[in-house]
Formats: sequence, structure tokens, C-alpha cells
Amino acid sequence: MGRVISKRIVTRFEQGSAPVRRRDSLAGEEPLEIRVGGSPLAVTMRTPGNDYELAAGFLVSEGVISEAGQFGAAEYCRGPEAEGENAYNVLNVLTGPGVDVPAADLIRNFYTTSSCGICGKASIEAVETVSAFAIEEDGATIELGQLLEMPDRLRREQAIFERTGGLHAAALFEISSGEMLILREDVGRHNAVDKAIGWALMEGRLPLRDCVLQVSGRASFELIQKAKMAGVPVFSAVSAPSSLAVELAVSAGITLAGFVRGDSLVAYSHPERIRVRAADPAGGSTLER
Amino acid sequence: MGRVISKRIVTRFEQGSAPVRRRDSLAGEEPLEIRVGGSPLAVTMRTPGNDYELAAGFLVSEGVISEAGQFGAAEYCRGPEAEGENAYNVLNVLTGPGVDVPAADLIRNFYTTSSCGICGKASIEAVETVSAFAIEEDGATIELGQLLEMPDRLRREQAIFERTGGLHAAALFEISSGEMLILREDVGRHNAVDKAIGWALMEGRLPLRDCVLQVSGRASFELIQKAKMAGVPVFSAVSAPSSLAVELAVSAGITLAGFVRGDSLVAYSHPERIRVRAADPAGGSTLER
Repeated sequence: MGRVISKRIVTRFEQGSAPVRRRDSLAGEEPLEIRVGGSPLAVTMRTPGNDYELAAGFLVSEGVISEAGQFGAAEYCRGPEAEGENAYNVLNVLTGPGVDVPAADLIRNFYTTSSCGICGKASIEAVETVSAFAIEEDGATIELGQLLEMPDRLRREQAIFERTGGLHAAALFEISSGEMLILREDVGRHNAVDKAIGWALMEGRLPLRDCVLQVSGRASFELIQKAKMAGVPVFSAVSAPSSLAVELAVSAGITLAGFVRGDSLVAYSHPERIRVRAADPAGGSTLER
Repeated sequence: MGRVISKRIVTRFEQGSAPVRRRDSLAGEEPLEIRVGGSPLAVTMRTPGNDYELAAGFLVSEGVISEAGQFGAAEYCRGPEAEGENAYNVLNVLTGPGVDVPAADLIRNFYTTSSCGICGKASIEAVETVSAFAIEEDGATIELGQLLEMPDRLRREQAIFERTGGLHAAALFEISSGEMLILREDVGRHNAVDKAIGWALMEGRLPLRDCVLQVSGRASFELIQKAKMAGVPVFSAVSAPSSLAVELAVSAGITLAGFVRGDSLVAYSHPERIRVRAADPAGGSTLER
């Protein structure tokens, strides 16, 4: 696992005992600079591994690409000061034909420029991106029981977390088959999601119409934005969402489930996609909306 | 509390029961654009409230200011499209005399530019900032028991988390008095830390030589960097640190405690600051280093 997990000597203190030194496993964190066509676009602090997927997912999230053919090739750069060593911390993406590569400044300053006009505007409009994929209102539905078991399935597959206790996870579950398609872990929750979406792009699976995006933590605006850019209809979080995450999920047509724990969850938007068995034999939610 | 907590109608699903609609509280999240002398520097998604502190702490973290007098004044901007309404999402800071305001591009692209030279460099050098404050090796020490009780004290004071389940927290504890000086909450963990540091700046308390910075979650590189910029000797996290967080804590001279739970913790760097009572009547740690 190399740089994914790093080993350190640490000191464990416990009340009433003498401190004990021992070897411990830590989640790897290193900066990755993403370049497109040689121009630096962004740097993210990430857990090394699946960097191609991370770059691909980042470009989907930023609205630069939306299908596999647009992610031409990628390679790690060898820097002039490297003394022959490849640090694997700079990745250059060559986009395929038909991609409108935005000026470096445009992406690099994405958050900044997009909000220069924020004053007085509804904040959500100012920072929202435009997705290549619409989320259909009468598309996928999912049974409550299937949603409720996802956090446990996610946790069971979290190999690195198991050893370090220090990683966020994002997984894609296919609704029709019930299968977990992919799970990615990272010190940054946005990176874990980008890696999963990048994987889907490269597999030719966008838009993810038949998928739930399950994350190990909370739901922020940024994560819902990524789900929207990948066409994901259902977003599920183990913990709470923020107010802006909910606003965006409502407007984007995404079902946002939070506090998915044990045998219950809270739907913050579009609950009509969630089917409950209970007394209703038709399987549809009995909710009035 | 207004925009700090927002109310929504949500739907609670539970296995075997009919879905129930109810009002729920969500942690507020809105973008804040920070300007210095009229130039946009950064946008962060934050929980509204304590925005002056957030801007001040951000500027400390970025190495622009390090004392109260350098944070001259700040005011919310009224935008041309505001129709007379102040959105309170753009804050302009006027720095005091003697501050070398960097070109907007320099900060705005901080992560990007600082890592252009990353190829082949040790990654940590490339993204590390230079602090105005040195952390003294023979400075503050802290008793194990005092550290162990901080997470509970933090949680008890987390007013917004209590109602929304959705916020990170950062608190400053004074070691000599044992007092909690300040607690700040935010949807972004880096914002919670910036708010606490910004408060300290404005109170004239930097460097925070006699303080522990306690956070509710994990310890990332970015958070340790902020602690370093404020001169904090002890950083304590309820959960795990990343590898790069530990590397930086080692080099910056910061004691990094993680998994601070119940009656034990793990020290990832500089354990010599932690005093254990136990059999050693002198009070010093019995560790060999």
C-alpha cells in the first residue's frame, strides 16, 4: 500500500499507566497538482492512489468533461528538481478531441470568480455549476431497506479506514442490482467522491442514473454539486447535511438522505423516490407531497 | 440564530412505519467572499456568524497578518444587484499600517502556485507556510488528565451541533488556567479553526503559547498549518491525523494528540509536553526519547 498507509512510532498515554511507544498506521496525505494540457489547474491534498480517477472526477465536477473519450491520457510529470525521482504528485491530463479546455484561470479561481457577483444574488445561484446531465423526476426509485443497509456495507469494505481510522469513503451502489460498484477512500471527502465519479467516467457509466452515492460522513454543498454533475439521483450520508446542500438537492432533483443509521433515515429532499413496504402493497411511498 | 440554523420540512423513514413529515434544524452553509482592500482573495463555504473572526483567522493562516493592529477594519459589501439588500456574504478587510498586502493572485492561487515547484521536492516543503511565531521546545507542558477532558467539554458547549448534528468545532483551552477561552462551530473544520484563531488575534492573544487547540474531528495538514501560524504548541483531535499532519507537527514543534477518548490518547509528535502523574512524583513524563 506504500504511500496510502504510512507507519510511525507513536506514544500511547493512558490514565494511571506509563506511556507506551508503538508503531501505528496513518492515512497517507500528499498534495496532488492536477494539470490539463500542461497548465496547472488545482492542487488538492489527497491520499495517494487512484490519482487518474481523482483527476477525471475533478474535471467532471468542474464541468470540463462528461464522457470517457474526453479524458484522453494522463501522466505524472517529472520535475526539474527531482534528481531523477518521480514524486507522483503532479499529474498532467491530456483531454480528448472536442473538449473545450477553459483557461487555467477560469478553473483555478473557480470559487472566487463564480462568486464575484454574489453580492445580493441568491448565494446558491452564484456558485452552482451546470451539469451535462439532467436528473429525471420519474427515474429510479429505491426501497428503504436497500438504502438502510448501505452504510454498513460501506464500512465493511473500508480497508484503509480499518487500519488507520482516518479516512472518508464514497461508494456507488447500483440500485437495480443492489451491487456496490466501487468504493474509494481519501483523507478528503471531496476527493473520495471525485475518485468514485472518475472511475465511473472511465468505465463509461455517466450519467449514473441507476446509482446511489453513499458517503461516510456529512453532506456538504460541494458533494451534492459533484453528485449533480455525475447525474446521480440519490445521495446518502451517514451524518447531517448542511442547509445549502439541501437547497441544491431540492433544485437539482436529487434525493438527499441523511442520518442513515440502523433502521431509519431522514429524507431532506425528494422523498418520493424512496419506497416503503409496510402496509402499502403497491410499494410506492404513501407520502403526500 | 437566523442563518446559523435553518429550518426545513423533512421526511423521516423508519422500517415498518409510515413516513413522517416534520420540521428539522440544519446547520447553515453559505459562501463568504473575503476581500482585502477591495480585491477578492478567497471564497469559503461557511456557517454564517463570526465572519470578522473568520476573515482575520484566514489572513493569519495565510501569513498576511499576525497581530490585532494589522486587522484594521472590515465591512460587508453591498452589491449592485442587491436591490438594497445586504447579503452579508462579501466581507472587505482594510488592513492596518505596515501590512504587506500580497497581490490578489498570490493568495487566491495559494495552493496552486505554491506547489508548481512540487515535482521532485519533498511535498511538505512546497506547501508549508512560514509562521511569524516560533514554538518553543521548552515552553508549555500539559497534564494528561487536562487533555483527556477537553473533548467532553467541547461537546458540551457545542450549541449548534446539539440542534443540527452537523457542525465541526474548534476550541482554545488555556493551559495554565484550564479555562476554555473560545469555541467556534462551522460546517467547515478549517473555518471553525480560523474563527477561533481570528478571535485570538483580535483579543491580542497571538501567539497562543499557553493554549491547546482542540478540534471535534480529524487532524489534517491544513489544520496543523493553522495552529503553527498562530503559535499553538498543542493540537488535540478527537479522531485520527493524516501522515502529513504528523510530519508537519513534528517539524513545527507541535504536540499532536489524536484519538483523545475516554482515559487515553495517542501522541503523534512531541509527547514530552504531556505530563503523566502515575508513579512519577516529579510530574515529568517518564518517556525516553
